[in-house]
Amino acid sequence: MNITLLEAENVISRAKIKANQLNVYMNIAVVDAGANLLTFARMDGAVLGAIDIAIKKAKTARLFNKETGVLGELSQPNGPLFNIEHSNGGLITFPGGIPIKNTEGDIIGAIGVSGSSIENDFLVAEYAVALIQ
Amino acid sequence: MNITLLEAENVISRAKIKANQLNVYMNIAVVDAGANLLTFARMDGAVLGAIDIAIKKAKTARLFNKETGVLGELSQPNGPLFNIEHSNGGLITFPGGIPIKNTEGDIIGAIGVSGSSIENDFLVAEYAVALIQ
Amino acid sequence: MNITLLEAENVISRAKIKANQLNVYMNIAVVDAGANLLTFARMDGAVLGAIDIAIKKAKTARLFNKETGVLGELSQPNGPLFNIEHSNGGLITFPGGIPIKNTEGDIIGAIGVSGSSIENDFLVAEYAVALIQ
Amino acid sequence: MNITLLEAENVISRAKIKANQLNVYMNIAVVDAGANLLTFARMDGAVLGAIDIAIKKAKTARLFNKETGVLGELSQPNGPLFNIEHSNGGLITFPGGIPIKNTEGDIIGAIGVSGSSIENDFLVAEYAVALIQ
Repeated sequence: MNITLLEAENVISRAKIKANQLNVYMNIAVVDAGANLLTFARMDGAVLGAIDIAIKKAKTARLFNKETGVLGELSQPNGPLFNIEHSNGGLITFPGGIPIKNTEGDIIGAIGVSGSSIENDFLVAEYAVALIQ
Repeated sequence: MNITLLEAENVISRAKIKANQLNVYMNIAVVDAGANLLTFARMDGAVLGAIDIAIKKAKTARLFNKETGVLGELSQPNGPLFNIEHSNGGLITFPGGIPIKNTEGDIIGAIGVSGSSIENDFLVAEYAVALIQ
Repeated sequence: MNITLLEAENVISRAKIKANQLNVYMNIAVVDAGANLLTFARMDGAVLGAIDIAIKKAKTARLFNKETGVLGELSQPNGPLFNIEHSNGGLITFPGGIPIKNTEGDIIGAIGVSGSSIENDFLVAEYAVALIQ
Repeated sequence: MNITLLEAENVISRAKIKANQLNVYMNIAVVDAGANLLTFARMDGAVLGAIDIAIKKAKTARLFNKETGVLGELSQPNGPLFNIEHSNGGLITFPGGIPIKNTEGDIIGAIGVSGSSIENDFLVAEYAVALIQ
């Protein structure tokens, strides 16, 4: 099972709605089950540095089938996965990346959101994927 | 002058319309005036290897303010720009990347399309940007 | 709005004046609003390893519209942006990078300074951009 | 022997004078005897893609102590150095990079110019280094 472009575009639309509610400007990326980029949008005014972070959050979430923030707890100094960020061409392990599941619970892709605080990044990502999950 | 997300989304929509007419599956990327990714869509069924090519075509078109195919004619063996593709982290210089201009003629971004023949890639890119230019 | 080469050259001149006052040898980079390199100077005697650091500080400051040292506080172990340095081809998040604003407060570029202590790097960067801001 | 920043800045100034005469917008880079970046300037209006090319031309010229165009003749298909551009993190081997010599004939650095035709790039580079050589 793999997320479709139409589903991913709806995820982006929901992310933009939530970002507008929070009055923040986000970069939003969706990858498919193969961790390959499916769709992306940078809201006008979003910081340029968060383009790559949003994409890396989405890839990280699917590559490890975990919310990025969960991986980030494990990658701290003295943690079991210290500096795992060096793998796979660079990971981002703070919140804002969430695997996307279908109604059967299969992981079909992931979203990555970046542009505001990690709390807002997570809220936008969570809201965006609630449609499908 | 810089392309907006809304304009870029309209460019993507037109690219999908043309791709559907041609019965092909495309990766479509739009970068802004700073050559930074603004929006991206991969149509269901499009080849994975063309994700990066579409993005690189868009970047190449804006980095040099030229259709990618024009640059590719110059980068052939014994051409004036032989192997220019080694610069800027990797360029793609066959057709499918086109600068996007506003009505005053200022370059405000670029599109990159990849997924079919270079003829089809170019046709889709050309159709997509005709809305703005 | 984008910084001009003449403005950037004045920024570099001021950085050199301040570096001379402090008796240090600096690498100084200025990027434009698109985070692309605009001008660079390495003072005779400045350490070679700081060439890339000065450029990365300038890019980091513009990519996130923040002084690099502010980002560095957030990227510490257990901080909200731990290991953000893995994004965007490598960031530098200790002091010495500062966004450059015009008189209306728009960010038009950024400076990055490296070659001495982070305190001196910051002092030189701060003095250099005071002309414009 | 190594080029100084002051000498390199004079090289850049001469490059800008010649570029203005030719009515073109150039990226101009100067590296030292160690092939490390010494100074750089992008004229307002110069294409973004030529930033990296100017720097790579300067590095290539010093790494091989040859005008880049001479190396480019050797790197053609069936030439002795075919695809040498893959080395050293990427070379540029078309004209516009020239070693800089002092009055004793020692190579003390190199210039790289990019932004117009290779004929103009070479003319600007040649004029710029004539002061020192």
